[in-house]
Amino acid sequence: MTRVLGIDPGLTRCGIGVVDVAPDRTARLVHVGVVRSAVDAAPGDRLATIARGIRAVLDEFAPEVAAVERVFAQHNVASVMGTAQASGVALMLAAERGLPTSTHTPSEVKAAITGYGSADKAQVQHMVARVLGLREVPKPADAADALAIALCHAWRSGGSAPDTAAATPAQQAWAEAEKRARVTRTYVRTSR
Amino acid sequence: MTRVLGIDPGLTRCGIGVVDVAPDRTARLVHVGVVRSAVDAAPGDRLATIARGIRAVLDEFAPEVAAVERVFAQHNVASVMGTAQASGVALMLAAERGLPTSTHTPSEVKAAITGYGSADKAQVQHMVARVLGLREVPKPADAADALAIALCHAWRSGGSAPDTAAATPAQQAWAEAEKRARVTRTYVRTSR
Repeated sequence: MTRVLGIDPGLTRCGIGVVDVAPDRTARLVHVGVVRSAVDAAPGDRLATIARGIRAVLDEFAPEVAAVERVFAQHNVASVMGTAQASGVALMLAAERGLPTSTHTPSEVKAAITGYGSADKAQVQHMVARVLGLREVPKPADAADALAIALCHAWRSGGSAPDTAAATPAQQAWAEAEKRARVTRTYVRTSR
Repeated sequence: MTRVLGIDPGLTRCGIGVVDVAPDRTARLVHVGVVRSAVDAAPGDRLATIARGIRAVLDEFAPEVAAVERVFAQHNVASVMGTAQASGVALMLAAERGLPTSTHTPSEVKAAITGYGSADKAQVQHMVARVLGLREVPKPADAADALAIALCHAWRSGGSAPDTAAATPAQQAWAEAEKRARVTRTYVRTSR
């Protein structure tokens, strides 16, 4: 069982999820929430607010590994830069606690959760709720997305591989096994 | 006299400068340096290394205000995202210490230091050395750039204005005075 922290970074809303994932890929919800910061606050203060929320989750739930959604430049540049700043704070705080840190792209998350990288957000969120045995999709979307990132990381890596340049032979073997298992993944259900 | 922390954010090299700036705009070098992180380390570990370096400067030199160069999306997207992450960590750490935080664009920095926003990097660095009474331009460039950001902030804001949405009447009055004084600024020398 590995306890995984997932972060959907953002300045206005930063999604934070924690899941326990077993070697057989079943998963259990530990925590889900969102940290918000005021749009009119100074950028440093907004990031400090986000940091407080992430630290509180690290303190209370003691995850063993952290995964953060990778940020790409898009048209809305101002917003992307704030998102990248929040992702930096999240990665730094997790690494300071000694957690291995990884980033995953949105399409990696979609592929890991639904089996295909072009799934829409609603499909991903529905599958997250199903995997975790939740009656409803966690709200807001950032919260559900954070859980998706945590599940993605656990399923892609076995839950413990840091984001280093080269995969170890064991990681490569896992990746191969994971690729073969992808078709059946969407049927995994929680045992809760 | 205001003690200003300037940060030229980066993952591979993060420039850190501290200057004391007097109300008459003269300035004195307090500290200049660069924190480096290993290119092959995990992103979280790289950011944690940068954070350690920034915290050490906050502890040792106790600046009163922090300014960080604003990051824009460019062609080299991967590098820009790392830079934005480092800037987020810098802003968060300063804000956690209660320092007002601001960001300035590269052309704001150039305009504040040399009098025109399209100055080249060498001109900015030469002027930083001259203003601070240094015999040589601090190396590497990231270190000199961090000092330029600190000076820019002090001169633009009076050294204490946080990055809020609207300028106060006093800030506006300063900005007007600053605009009038721009022609003579390049002749300000340190009294060291």
